[in-house]
Amino acid sequence: MNLIAPPDYMFLAMESREHPMHVGGLELFTPPHGSGPDFARNLYESLLAEPKVANMFRRRVGSAMATPRALTWTDDSDVDLSYHVRLSALPRPGRIRELLETVSLWHGSLLDRHRPLWEINIVEGLEDGRFAVYTKIHHALADGVSALKLLQNSLVTDPSELHVPSFFAPRNTSDRPGSRSAFSAIRTAAKLSLDTAGIIPHAGRIGFKAALAEQVPLPLRAPRSMFNVPIGGARRFAGQSWRIERLKTVSTALDCTLNDVVLGMCSGALRSYLLEQAALPEKPLISLVPVSLRQTGANGSNAVGAVLASLGTHKADPLDRMQEITRTIAIAKEMMGGLSQLQALALSAAFVSPFAISSITGVSQAVPPTFNVVISNVPGPTQPLYWNGARLDGIYPASIVMDGLALNITLTSNADNIDFGLIGCRRSVPHLQRLLLHLESALQDLERAT
Amino acid sequence: MNLIAPPDYMFLAMESREHPMHVGGLELFTPPHGSGPDFARNLYESLLAEPKVANMFRRRVGSAMATPRALTWTDDSDVDLSYHVRLSALPRPGRIRELLETVSLWHGSLLDRHRPLWEINIVEGLEDGRFAVYTKIHHALADGVSALKLLQNSLVTDPSELHVPSFFAPRNTSDRPGSRSAFSAIRTAAKLSLDTAGIIPHAGRIGFKAALAEQVPLPLRAPRSMFNVPIGGARRFAGQSWRIERLKTVSTALDCTLNDVVLGMCSGALRSYLLEQAALPEKPLISLVPVSLRQTGANGSNAVGAVLASLGTHKADPLDRMQEITRTIAIAKEMMGGLSQLQALALSAAFVSPFAISSITGVSQAVPPTFNVVISNVPGPTQPLYWNGARLDGIYPASIVMDGLALNITLTSNADNIDFGLIGCRRSVPHLQRLLLHLESALQDLERAT
Repeated sequence: MNLIAPPDYMFLAMESREHPMHVGGLELFTPPHGSGPDFARNLYESLLAEPKVANMFRRRVGSAMATPRALTWTDDSDVDLSYHVRLSALPRPGRIRELLETVSLWHGSLLDRHRPLWEINIVEGLEDGRFAVYTKIHHALADGVSALKLLQNSLVTDPSELHVPSFFAPRNTSDRPGSRSAFSAIRTAAKLSLDTAGIIPHAGRIGFKAALAEQVPLPLRAPRSMFNVPIGGARRFAGQSWRIERLKTVSTALDCTLNDVVLGMCSGALRSYLLEQAALPEKPLISLVPVSLRQTGANGSNAVGAVLASLGTHKADPLDRMQEITRTIAIAKEMMGGLSQLQALALSAAFVSPFAISSITGVSQAVPPTFNVVISNVPGPTQPLYWNGARLDGIYPASIVMDGLALNITLTSNADNIDFGLIGCRRSVPHLQRLLLHLESALQDLERAT
Repeated sequence: MNLIAPPDYMFLAMESREHPMHVGGLELFTPPHGSGPDFARNLYESLLAEPKVANMFRRRVGSAMATPRALTWTDDSDVDLSYHVRLSALPRPGRIRELLETVSLWHGSLLDRHRPLWEINIVEGLEDGRFAVYTKIHHALADGVSALKLLQNSLVTDPSELHVPSFFAPRNTSDRPGSRSAFSAIRTAAKLSLDTAGIIPHAGRIGFKAALAEQVPLPLRAPRSMFNVPIGGARRFAGQSWRIERLKTVSTALDCTLNDVVLGMCSGALRSYLLEQAALPEKPLISLVPVSLRQTGANGSNAVGAVLASLGTHKADPLDRMQEITRTIAIAKEMMGGLSQLQALALSAAFVSPFAISSITGVSQAVPPTFNVVISNVPGPTQPLYWNGARLDGIYPASIVMDGLALNITLTSNADNIDFGLIGCRRSVPHLQRLLLHLESALQDLERAT
C-alpha cells in the first residue's frame, strides 16, 4: 500500500464529471510504403501482446470507497490490456474533421478509477491511408509534458527499427539502444512540468499566503471574457501543424523569439474568433505562459513558473500586437529574474490558485480572472520519429480545461513542424475548429507585415 | 423550473462513476436494396437536421451545483444535436465482435449532466453492409421498456415509408399514421416499467418496512455467486437473436410458457459459464423475473412486480432444470395472485431494496443476495419494422448492473425473433460473450431433450 502523494492526490480529489483531470495526445502516422490494410490492426495486436506492463501503468486508486484523504495507489496485478488498448475506426469519409470530432468525444469522458488510469486508441479509416493514435493518461500519473514524452517512448529515429516495446512496457533508461537518443533532452527533464494543471498543486501548497507574504504584485489585469466561465464536461478538440520555418522567418524579421511568434499567432486567431463571436473585450486578453525556471539540485529536475503576457487583442494591426506581446513578456521575465525561486514559484502559484479553488468550490464567477487563456509550449522531438516504420506526422497535445479557463492551447515541436493542440469546453467555446483557420490567417498576416 | 420527481431523482442521486444509470439499446439494420455507401451517413444527417426536439429530450438537470435534494429539470433551449447524435465506424474487419466491443465501451461511460441525458450513435463499417444504432438514455428520463419503445418511434411497418420524424422529435400519439400501429400495445403501456432498476424507486418508497408489516415471506434463498459482488464502472455487452419458432417448439413439447423456455436457456447457459469459471454454486441460482401486475385505473398504466425463480443450475439434466423453473415460477405466481397489489409491490420492493441500499452505501458484501441475476423479458414489435426503408434485424437491450448484481439479461421480441441483450461488469463477469454460445447450446440441449 502506497499513499498517493499530495500533488497527485489533488488531481484525483479535484476531478469531477465536469472536470476530467486527464491529459491526452493525438498522434498522426503515415504507414511505411507498401504496408497492407492491416498495419494498424497489427500494431494494435502487438500492443495487446505486450507481456509486461510498467509499474506506473499498473497503478490504480486503492479504494474509491476510502475516505478521500487516504487514497492509496495499489498495484493492479491483472491489467486487462483489452480494456486499455483499443482499436477504432472513423466514419466515412474519414477526414481530419471526423478524427477531431471523435477525439473530442473521447477527451470528455472520465477514466475508470477502478483501473489503471490510462487508455490508448488506435484509429484507422482515415481517407488518406494514415492512422492516428489517441492516448489519455490521468494527471495523477503524469503531467502533460511527461505524458507526451511517454508516448514517444516507443518511437525511434530509425524507420527500419521494428518491434520497439510499447510505451507502457517496463523500460530502463540505461538499456535503451542508441538510436533512441534523439529526444534524450526531453527524457532527462523527467520532472519538468510545463502545463498549467501541473502548477496547481504548487498553488495549493504555496498559494496565496506565500504570494501575499512576498508582496508580489500582479502586473496585468485581465478582462472578463467568454473563456472565463464555468465549464461543462464535454470537450471540443482541434489540432494542426505549421512549418517551423515559417515562424522562424517572422521571428528573425522581428528580432523576437519563436515563442513570441506563437503568441502572435494565437493573438491574431483569438481576436478574429472573438470578433466573430461578437465577444472581443475592450481590454487585451492576458495569456498565462508557463516557463521553465532555473535548474535545481543534482537530480536535474526543473521548477516550473509562469509569466503573464498581454496578447494585445484590442489592437487591429498584427505588428502592434507583436509589440505588446514582446514588451509584456520582457517585463515579466525581468520581474521573474529578480525573484528568488520561492518568490517565482509563489508568483506562479498566485496566478493559478484561483482556479484551483474555483474548481473545487464552483465560485469562479465571483473571482475576476487573473488571465484569460493558457498558451503552453512544450518541447518535442527535433528529428523525424517512427513507430514500427510508420512516420510520425504530428503530435497534438490535448490538455485540461477548468472552471474559469475554458480554452487551452498547447503546442509542441515535432521535427520541422510546430503542432498545435486546442482543447475547449464544448459549450463555452463553440466552433473551436475555426481557431485553426484563424491561426493560419494570423501567421499569414505576420508574414505579410514583416 | 421543475423539481425532479422522487423516482427519477433517485436515479440521478444513485448514479456514480461505477454505477451509470442509463439504459441503452443496440439495433441492427439492413439497408434497402440498392442503397449506396452513404445510407448511414444520410440517416445521420437527417437526424442532425431535425428541426424540433421533444420536451423530454430537451430536459437537463437544473444545477449540478445545487444541493442534491433540490435538483430540477430545466429546459435546454439550445440543444446541440451534433453532441447527442453521432456517426461512428467499426475497425476492420467490422464483425459483430467489433460492434459489441465498441458498444461495451460506450455503455460504460457516463452521460454528461450538463446536457439533456441521451445520445444516439449510428455505426457504419459492418463487414456485411449492415449498420447499427446504439442509443443511451438516462433512466431518470425513461426506464428500459420506455426507452426501447422510444427507439421504435421512428420505425414503421411499411418499408416504402420514408422521412419519418426521428425518435427525439415532438410527436402526438393521435396524429400518427395508421401504418405505425403495429406496436400500439406497447405504446399504450407507456408507464409500464419491467426492468429491475425501475422497481428500485418503489423499493425506496415502499421498502422493507411495508414488506415486514405485510409479513411477506421470501420463498427462496440465493447462494453467493460471482455475480453478486461490488462492480466497477466498465461494462461488457453482448447480444444475439434466436428464432421464436425454436423456443415455441420446446414450450409446446414441455407444456410451459415461452418465458419458461427463456429461463431454461439462461439456466443452461449460466451453468456452463459458471462451470467454465469454476464458480458454480452448490445451490441453484435464483433469478429475479420482473412481471406485469394487473391493470390499474383508466390511464392504462401497469404496476410492476417481480417474482423469484430458481434456475436449477445445480442440476446437470436440462429437463430437471426446466422442472425446477416451472415449479418455482408457479409457486411464485400463486403467491403473487393471493396478494393485494400493495402487498405484491411490497414483495417486489423487498426483493430489490437491498440493492438500492447497497448502491448508495457500498455495503453489498454484507447483505446476502436475495437473487443472483435478473432475467427480464420486454415486449417488442411483433411485425418487421423499417427505418427509412432499412429493415430492423435486431434490438438488443443494454440495461443497468449494480453492486451485488453484476449481470443483467434482458430480452425482447422482434417480429420472428427473440433478441437477447447481456450486460455485465467488465471486471466481475469475464468473457461475457461466451454466454451467447452457451445460450445456443442450452437451446440445442432442450431441443434434443424434447
